[in-house]
Amino acid sequence: MLRQILLLSSSKVHGYDFLEYAANDICELLNENKVSTVTFIPYALSDHDAYLKKVEEPFKKWGYSVESTHNGNPLQIIENAQAIFVGGGNTFRLLKTLYDLNLVETIRKRVLSVGIPYIGTSAGTNVATKSINTTNDMPIVYPPSLEALKLVPFNINPHYLDSDPNSKHKGETREERILQYLEEEDSHTVLGLREGSTLWIKNNTAVLKGIQGARLFIRGKDPQEINVGSDLSFLLKEEGSA
Amino acid sequence: MLRQILLLSSSKVHGYDFLEYAANDICELLNENKVSTVTFIPYALSDHDAYLKKVEEPFKKWGYSVESTHNGNPLQIIENAQAIFVGGGNTFRLLKTLYDLNLVETIRKRVLSVGIPYIGTSAGTNVATKSINTTNDMPIVYPPSLEALKLVPFNINPHYLDSDPNSKHKGETREERILQYLEEEDSHTVLGLREGSTLWIKNNTAVLKGIQGARLFIRGKDPQEINVGSDLSFLLKEEGSA
Repeated sequence: MLRQILLLSSSKVHGYDFLEYAANDICELLNENKVSTVTFIPYALSDHDAYLKKVEEPFKKWGYSVESTHNGNPLQIIENAQAIFVGGGNTFRLLKTLYDLNLVETIRKRVLSVGIPYIGTSAGTNVATKSINTTNDMPIVYPPSLEALKLVPFNINPHYLDSDPNSKHKGETREERILQYLEEEDSHTVLGLREGSTLWIKNNTAVLKGIQGARLFIRGKDPQEINVGSDLSFLLKEEGSA
Repeated sequence: MLRQILLLSSSKVHGYDFLEYAANDICELLNENKVSTVTFIPYALSDHDAYLKKVEEPFKKWGYSVESTHNGNPLQIIENAQAIFVGGGNTFRLLKTLYDLNLVETIRKRVLSVGIPYIGTSAGTNVATKSINTTNDMPIVYPPSLEALKLVPFNINPHYLDSDPNSKHKGETREERILQYLEEEDSHTVLGLREGSTLWIKNNTAVLKGIQGARLFIRGKDPQEINVGSDLSFLLKEEGSA
């Protein structure tokens, strides 16, 4: 399957500027594809102009211009996109807007059939997966479905957080929440990307990149630590594959 | 309006046994109403038998028996309930099951028209409000709506957590998430109940009880600290009141 995808756990990582921890991976992907303009999808935050300004900063520094789908006809802009960057914020708001603007199928086609690069961070990573069932975000709006772009056939939990044994807070840990999801019928695999983890996908190959490991949850198996550099291509063959 | 409601932030609080921090408030409410059997709604967790066993422990110690809606016809059991206790777990799973079993209207009627006591913790508190838009839980299933029992006309965020200025984690803080909700059209008021906070409601009077304060978010206003003992009756008059 054609695909060139970078799924970042988060845009902000402790000790790094916005998007900086993944700068090399992002620039390599864009350069390989001779991308000059990145198409930004800003719907996860409410102030699209401010968000565009923030995103332009690193991309301009690296030599790319940025156009945002909110400054024109979004469908047309995506039809002509050289590469797509989907920023973080609220995953429910992002997915609902993609459905409301009828962009889901067009993004899928551009990424999986035409093969343009897709870069997502946080909410932008969540919507790239099978469904947003494993987002950390508040359900501030009600999308028509939790099914997402299905660029990969499994779930991701971005900003994955290990439980703090000294915490006095009694809310569910992240691991408990993910295990609750895996009790449900249609669930299968959840990759917990710690802040600073990136899933790098080229066609049918997937590798964990970045500066932090990940934690892999597969229904019926013990959770497993994944180190940076690990081959995760087997995840792309999971049932329900796109 | 007739209602006798206790909404607990959580069943587990640091330093206390399960439900113990609110034992006096719970027993007072049940005794005033001459309740001998509490009807438990266990759907927020997947193992209903184990959950019933856990809930029976404190209630039996306090002198009440517990029946669970999963051990019979749930609609009939609720129709005959003397008092309802809705436990925590996953809010999406809980609300979806209430819809699937067609229990929403019956619970509303029992609580708001007949006036039986309703006690909720965590997910059981979320579903008592206007909607579950401010739950912390993962959307592990897709309920037919986020609208909830509407026993109160505003939103609650249980397990409310102050941000840790020393944290290296870059995910959104709880306050940021709630403020994102308040950017959305139908939102108005969110009461953040810290673990150990209880909202006590009798007819049109509401008071903050428990051992921890709350944080109140009203659209367009600065967030506000609420101390234990504060009168919050004005929240019951908010627009969209049940």
